[in-house]
Formats: sequence, C-alpha cells, structure tokens
Amino acid sequence: MYKNKFIAAIILLFISGTAFSQNEDSVMIKKISDEILQNGTAYNNLRSLCKTIGQRLSGSPGMYKAEDWGVKVLTASGADKSYKQQCMVPHWVRGKKEVFNAAFNTKMKPFSILSLGNAAGTGSKGVTASVIEIKNFDELNKRKDEVKGKIVFYNYRYNKKLLGGGYGDAVRYRSSGASNAAKYGALAVIVRSVTAANDNNPHTGALRYNDSFPKIPAVAIGPNDADRLSNFLAKDKFRLPFNLFTHSQMLPDTIGHNIIGEIKGSEFPDEIITIGGHLDSWDPGEGAHDDGAGVVQSIEVLRVFKALGYTPKRTIRIVLFANEENGLRGGNKYMEEAKAKNEKHIMAMESDGGGETPKGFSCGMTEEQYAKVKSWKNLFSMFDADRFSFTKGGGGGADIGPLQAAFKTAQFGLNPAGNRYFDYHHAATDVFENVHERELHMGAVVMAAMVYLVDKYGL
Amino acid sequence: MYKNKFIAAIILLFISGTAFSQNEDSVMIKKISDEILQNGTAYNNLRSLCKTIGQRLSGSPGMYKAEDWGVKVLTASGADKSYKQQCMVPHWVRGKKEVFNAAFNTKMKPFSILSLGNAAGTGSKGVTASVIEIKNFDELNKRKDEVKGKIVFYNYRYNKKLLGGGYGDAVRYRSSGASNAAKYGALAVIVRSVTAANDNNPHTGALRYNDSFPKIPAVAIGPNDADRLSNFLAKDKFRLPFNLFTHSQMLPDTIGHNIIGEIKGSEFPDEIITIGGHLDSWDPGEGAHDDGAGVVQSIEVLRVFKALGYTPKRTIRIVLFANEENGLRGGNKYMEEAKAKNEKHIMAMESDGGGETPKGFSCGMTEEQYAKVKSWKNLFSMFDADRFSFTKGGGGGADIGPLQAAFKTAQFGLNPAGNRYFDYHHAATDVFENVHERELHMGAVVMAAMVYLVDKYGL
Repeated sequence: MYKNKFIAAIILLFISGTAFSQNEDSVMIKKISDEILQNGTAYNNLRSLCKTIGQRLSGSPGMYKAEDWGVKVLTASGADKSYKQQCMVPHWVRGKKEVFNAAFNTKMKPFSILSLGNAAGTGSKGVTASVIEIKNFDELNKRKDEVKGKIVFYNYRYNKKLLGGGYGDAVRYRSSGASNAAKYGALAVIVRSVTAANDNNPHTGALRYNDSFPKIPAVAIGPNDADRLSNFLAKDKFRLPFNLFTHSQMLPDTIGHNIIGEIKGSEFPDEIITIGGHLDSWDPGEGAHDDGAGVVQSIEVLRVFKALGYTPKRTIRIVLFANEENGLRGGNKYMEEAKAKNEKHIMAMESDGGGETPKGFSCGMTEEQYAKVKSWKNLFSMFDADRFSFTKGGGGGADIGPLQAAFKTAQFGLNPAGNRYFDYHHAATDVFENVHERELHMGAVVMAAMVYLVDKYGL
Repeated sequence: MYKNKFIAAIILLFISGTAFSQNEDSVMIKKISDEILQNGTAYNNLRSLCKTIGQRLSGSPGMYKAEDWGVKVLTASGADKSYKQQCMVPHWVRGKKEVFNAAFNTKMKPFSILSLGNAAGTGSKGVTASVIEIKNFDELNKRKDEVKGKIVFYNYRYNKKLLGGGYGDAVRYRSSGASNAAKYGALAVIVRSVTAANDNNPHTGALRYNDSFPKIPAVAIGPNDADRLSNFLAKDKFRLPFNLFTHSQMLPDTIGHNIIGEIKGSEFPDEIITIGGHLDSWDPGEGAHDDGAGVVQSIEVLRVFKALGYTPKRTIRIVLFANEENGLRGGNKYMEEAKAKNEKHIMAMESDGGGETPKGFSCGMTEEQYAKVKSWKNLFSMFDADRFSFTKGGGGGADIGPLQAAFKTAQFGLNPAGNRYFDYHHAATDVFENVHERELHMGAVVMAAMVYLVDKYGL
C-alpha cells in the first residue's frame, strides 16, 4: 500500500509536471492564435502577392518581382536578415494563346485548352490530325495500333469517390500521358483537366517527357469541353481532323532564387528549423492557394514570434522556395547549400496544400521523434487540427524532401481539409478571392504552434 | 494460464465480433459515401432552391413556393409519402428599402443598413435624432442618461480571437440591443453587423423585444459603414442629427407548413427518426448556407437510402421545418403533433450550421446513448468527421429542441468547420455560389452514416 501510494505520488507529480508545462504551452499557443486571428498579416500579404504580382512561373517577370516582394515582406515581418539564394531554374514559356478546334468547321466553338507545363509546342504550323479518345492507359495499350498519326485525347475522369481526393489517381495522365502516347506514334495529346470542378477551366501542371520517345505537344482541356469533344467524337464516323496550335517552348535555364528570412536562435543558433512554401506558381491564375498560401503562412510564423516578443532558441528560417512546380531546383539548391555549409537541420515544415482550414500534419520522421510530437497532440485539439499522420522517414512536402534525403531532417507537412483545393489548382480560378482569411490564418496558427514546440523542446 | 487463455479467447471473439459488424458497417457507409459523392443531388437541389425560389421568409411568397418545392423534391427523392403539416407563422415584412443618412448633409453617402427581423419600422415620418456610439452594454448602462431621444449605435466588434467564432458573443446586441436602449429612452438602434466579414453587407436576424419597453426601430449596419459612422461621430462636436427611415412591420400570423417526407420502417415503423433543416430563410440572400444546406442534406439522407435499396428498420422522417428564424413555430408544431399522436421519437438530427466541411456531431442525449454513439466514432474517421461532443440531455438544433424537451429524444447536430459561415449568415452573400459541392455532400454523407447506424442498432 505504501509503495503503491509512493508510485501514485510519483505519477501524480509527473502528470502535474506535464500538466504544468502543457498549460504554459497552451497559454503561449493561445497567444499565437489570438495574435494571428486578430492582427495576422498573411491574408493582406496574399492579396498583395496575388494582386500586385500575380502569376510567377520560374523565369518569368513575375518570378523576379515576387523575389523582391519576398525580401521586402520578410524584412517588414521582422527577419533579422533576409536574402536571396541563387539557383538556376528551368525557363519554360507558354507563348501566345493555344488554339484547338475543328479543321473541317470553322464555326465550331474553339475548345478551352492550356499547354501543359514543360510541353513542347506545335509551332505555327500546328498539328492537324484526327482525335482518338482513350479512357485510360489500359485502353491505350490495347488500342496502340490505332494511335499512330493521331491526337490522343485522354478522357480519364477525376474519381470523386476517393476520400483523399482524386488528384493522385488522375494526375498520371497529365504527367506521363504524352510520352506514353508518343511511344505509339501519337502526334500530340489532349488531357482532361485533373479536377473535380464542374466548370470549363483547363488546369495546367508539369508533364515529364520520357527521353526515349518524341517530345510531342500536350495540352489540358477544360472539363466541360472534354465532354463536348467526347460527344462529338462519339458521333463522328469520319474521324474528322482537328487543328492544334500551341507555342510553348523550353528556353535555356535562367537565374532564380530561394528567398530566405531568418531569426537567429538564442540558445542553439546552429540548429536550423526551416519553414516554407514555394514562391513560383503556374501561370493561368494568381497562385493563391498554390502556393501563395504557404508562402504567407510561413512568413506569418516569423511575424507572430516577433510580434509576441518570443525569441526562439533555435534558428528559424523562412524559405520561399524557387521552382517547385516544374523542377524543384529551389528545394535541391537549399539542401546543397546546407550540405556545403555543414548545417544542422533539425526540422522542416512545408505548407503546399492550399489555404483551407487545417486538419493537422503529415509527420515524416523517426518513431522516437513522432512519439514526442504525438505527446503535443492535445495542444492542437482546440483548433480541430490534431490529426497527425506518421510515415517513418517520410516526407512533408516536395521542397523540404531533399533535406530529409540528405540529413534525415524531421518533416512536417500542413494538411488542410482539401475539399476545394483541386477545383482551383493550376487553373485561372486559383485567385486571392478563393482563399478565406480565417481559414488561411488558422493554418498559420497551427504551423506557428508546432514550430514553437519543436523550438522549445527540440526533436 | 488456462484461465487467462480462455479469457483471451473470449475477448478475441468479442473483438472480432465487433470487428465483423464494424467492417460490415464500414462497407455500407463507404457505399453511402460513394453514392453521395458521385451521384449526390443535394448540390443541384440547393441550386434550384436558391436560384428558382431564393429567399423564403415566413409568410412571404418565397415560403409558399419553397413548400411546394419541398414536397416535389422529397417525392422525387423516393419518399413513400410527402406532405405538409400546417402551422401558424409570424408574418413580418420588411417593406421598402431602409435609409439612414445625415439629416444635415444630403451629399453624405447613405449608410448600408437592413431592418432587423421582427423590428418595428419608423414609418414614413422617420426618426431624426443624433447618434450616440456605444461600445457594449456596460457602457450603455454607464451612459444611460445620455441616451434619451437619441439613436443608439452599438459598435460592438466581432471577436475574431474566439475559436468557436464570435457570433455567440456578439449576437446579444442584435437580439436585445433595442429593448435595452429603449429602456433608457432611445428612439432607435443601429447595430454593427454580427460578422467577421470585412465587407459592407449588413446582416439581419431576429431581435426579441422586451414587452416592458417601447418597441423601437432597429437596424443592422454593414461593417465598413459602422467604421465610417464611428469615424464621423468621433469628429462630430455638434452631435448632428441623422435620419432613419425603415418600413418593416409585423402583420397578423399567417399559415405556413412543415414539409415532411417519410420512409416507413420495416421492423419498427413506430420508432421515428427525424432529420431536418429549416426551409425558411432571411431575405437579403438566398438562404444557401442558412439553411438551404441543411434542407438538401436532409433530403439526401432519404435519397441515398432509396438509391442503395436500403430499407430502414425504423421510420425515417425528413422534416423541412417552417419558421426557425423568427419564431420556431415549425419545430414547436412538429412536437405538438407528435405528442397528440403519441408518437415515439428515438432520434432527431438537425443540420443548421451551413454547408461547410463536416467535423462531427453535437450529441445531446443520455450517457448510455452517448456511449453507444461513441463506439461508432472510428467509422467517421475516414471522413475526418469523428469529433463528437456530448451534453447530457442537450440540444442538437433549434427545430429539434422541442422533441428533446417533450420526449427526451436523442439529439444530433451536424457540426461543420464553420470558419466561413458567419461571413454570409443573414446577409446578401448567403447565396448558392458560396456553398461548395463536395463540402455540402460530405455533410450529407456523415448524416446518412449516423442515421444508418442508429436505425440499425437503435439508441
């Protein structure tokens, strides 16, 4: 009995010790939340990024403007120092507006299309050929003898039933469809946009050519026009030809930059915590959800620490990565520099899932690290953002992936609810107006809360 | 050891038994999810309710059109029978457009205002008086001697820091502000809109007069114009007068209806499960989130059961309640009829928090009932909608509250994320375009899943 009492007392002491520090943390985290929800600048920063600069594809004038914007905003938000880290980036240009319409009927309404990123163009001669509709890669392989000399139209539908969203399932037609069709002699591909939206906006995004096959032109088509084209083809006994004109091309690599803002750690300045999103965006919209949201949320983490007078123990580095969309040159460069300087990277966090209400984090780390992170879970319940998922040594985002590969840096990826994200992703509708202030700021709150905990307790 | 093994075997049997039925349930719930996410009609029903009918305040022509719409859609969705249940409803009319502007300067831009629901009007004579700005009820009480003969302007700001949202905190100025000011001799009140939105839309909503004091006119003012008015008053040494003209009035009660669609239970037809939202709405917008969303989600529960060929054991009754906004006559009538017919109501569910991504349910029931509901929690994790909160004997929604009071019927209130809801609530922006298809349908999925479980296992 005495022994049990003793153990009970020890346990009680332990629990109340934990309770005390958890209470202290919850007070600090509520302060973070109050400051961001009341005075947060992320939303206004997003407005300025989207409305004064807009699209900022690697190598475009928008990219350079956004880089200067980033240095300015990081400094204004309280960074001890803000600087540019140079890296070479691919320089793909869309050229003038794409056209796809019937070669046989000039009165047919042109279809709404966009060249896929990295795609070669048809040039001014264009491609004139009949179109073959293909539902999926299985059908492509079965009908490979029919493909030669034609334009392949992948009409693979986004699967709305998939609870994680149908993007991962459908995106392979965008990324590999061109080379898979070129293998069988296709002249070009038209890909149904990877989206659940019911509108007619084409959604661009990167393709990857397989160097073994000809690099044929490739475009995304708006969902409504994919249906219109499919309906036409179903009735077209003569396999009438279509004209496709696209003017995109890959120019030589050019100079770009990661934009970095730092607060130096007071106790362990050599231990670096990286928080970021990517500054580049596709060109049809304003890159608001993808990834203006992640950029301004990351900056807000730095701002809120400064505003609350909180000096981190470790060095906090906000990185606005270059060229996530079509090359990942920024993320790779950041890792290479870290390696060259023999830096110690204990944690990296990325927000690149859009500015919707946050649910929690994807945690890619060791089991021991995750056990620690999990012990903080209840601190995120007040925000309904305590859904933590774990992958041993897994990733948290494309840009911070190289840090994991090089240093086994613990990874955190912010996970937003994501029901709306792929409506806007890489399309003309990815604009400031489709991001909501409170949702965006809630994401910044939980990011800052997690950074605060890792900074305080280490990982 | 033998005994332990025996116990272990029993436990294993129990676990696998549970696992088996949970697996069966999870298969059925995934079917519900697939059907709604792929073929759901809630979104299109919401479009038709919002765009062909629009606002449907109690007693208005829109209310009668919406009643007919409800019967038609319930029948088309597979109800065994659809019918109207008559109840008397208040008949408040807004009258012609409200005007509030400077009496001394006809060039000053008029302020954006809306009469509060149930409020008396100024009539065509209007009210001309100086305006006194009051921050909160404490200040009102302190400055009570200054209020007489004036227009009281409550400029209480929505507290963005409150994690549950600032509505509950700020709404008392809308509901009680008029009578509290009338007590001290005010002639009218202007209430800063109860919203976190940064725009200039006034948000209406019901006030309740205290019969002991004069029923003075009361309006909501758009947030931007509340700031403009406040800035003017701060500089106005002369307390210059303003004119207020409002034309609202309460007419005699009129006839309205709850709209009901039923599927008869196969095993326990006398045990009734009620699922509903309210059909009435405020008049500035289209009542899309409030509560078109709840209406079409409730109808979707019935439709998905029919579409999957699932015959419930208990009677499922979808109720589109009349007059939630300014009287609750529909909810009360439904309970009274149930009492008169001696019906057995085992469960009631309401969706009246808007069509955003669902988080879970508020459960108002006995501890024993909640223990059962909690055992189903993991079935809602795949939808990120497993946040259940419990209040012993608590409520799940205004319209189903009377059932709890009369029969202790177990209550479920759907809880959406709610970060955007109060931007639109009772304002001109509560339109179809601000509801998202997948978010709306996810709500219907988790409602149908919970109804399926309660129907199958009882409560």
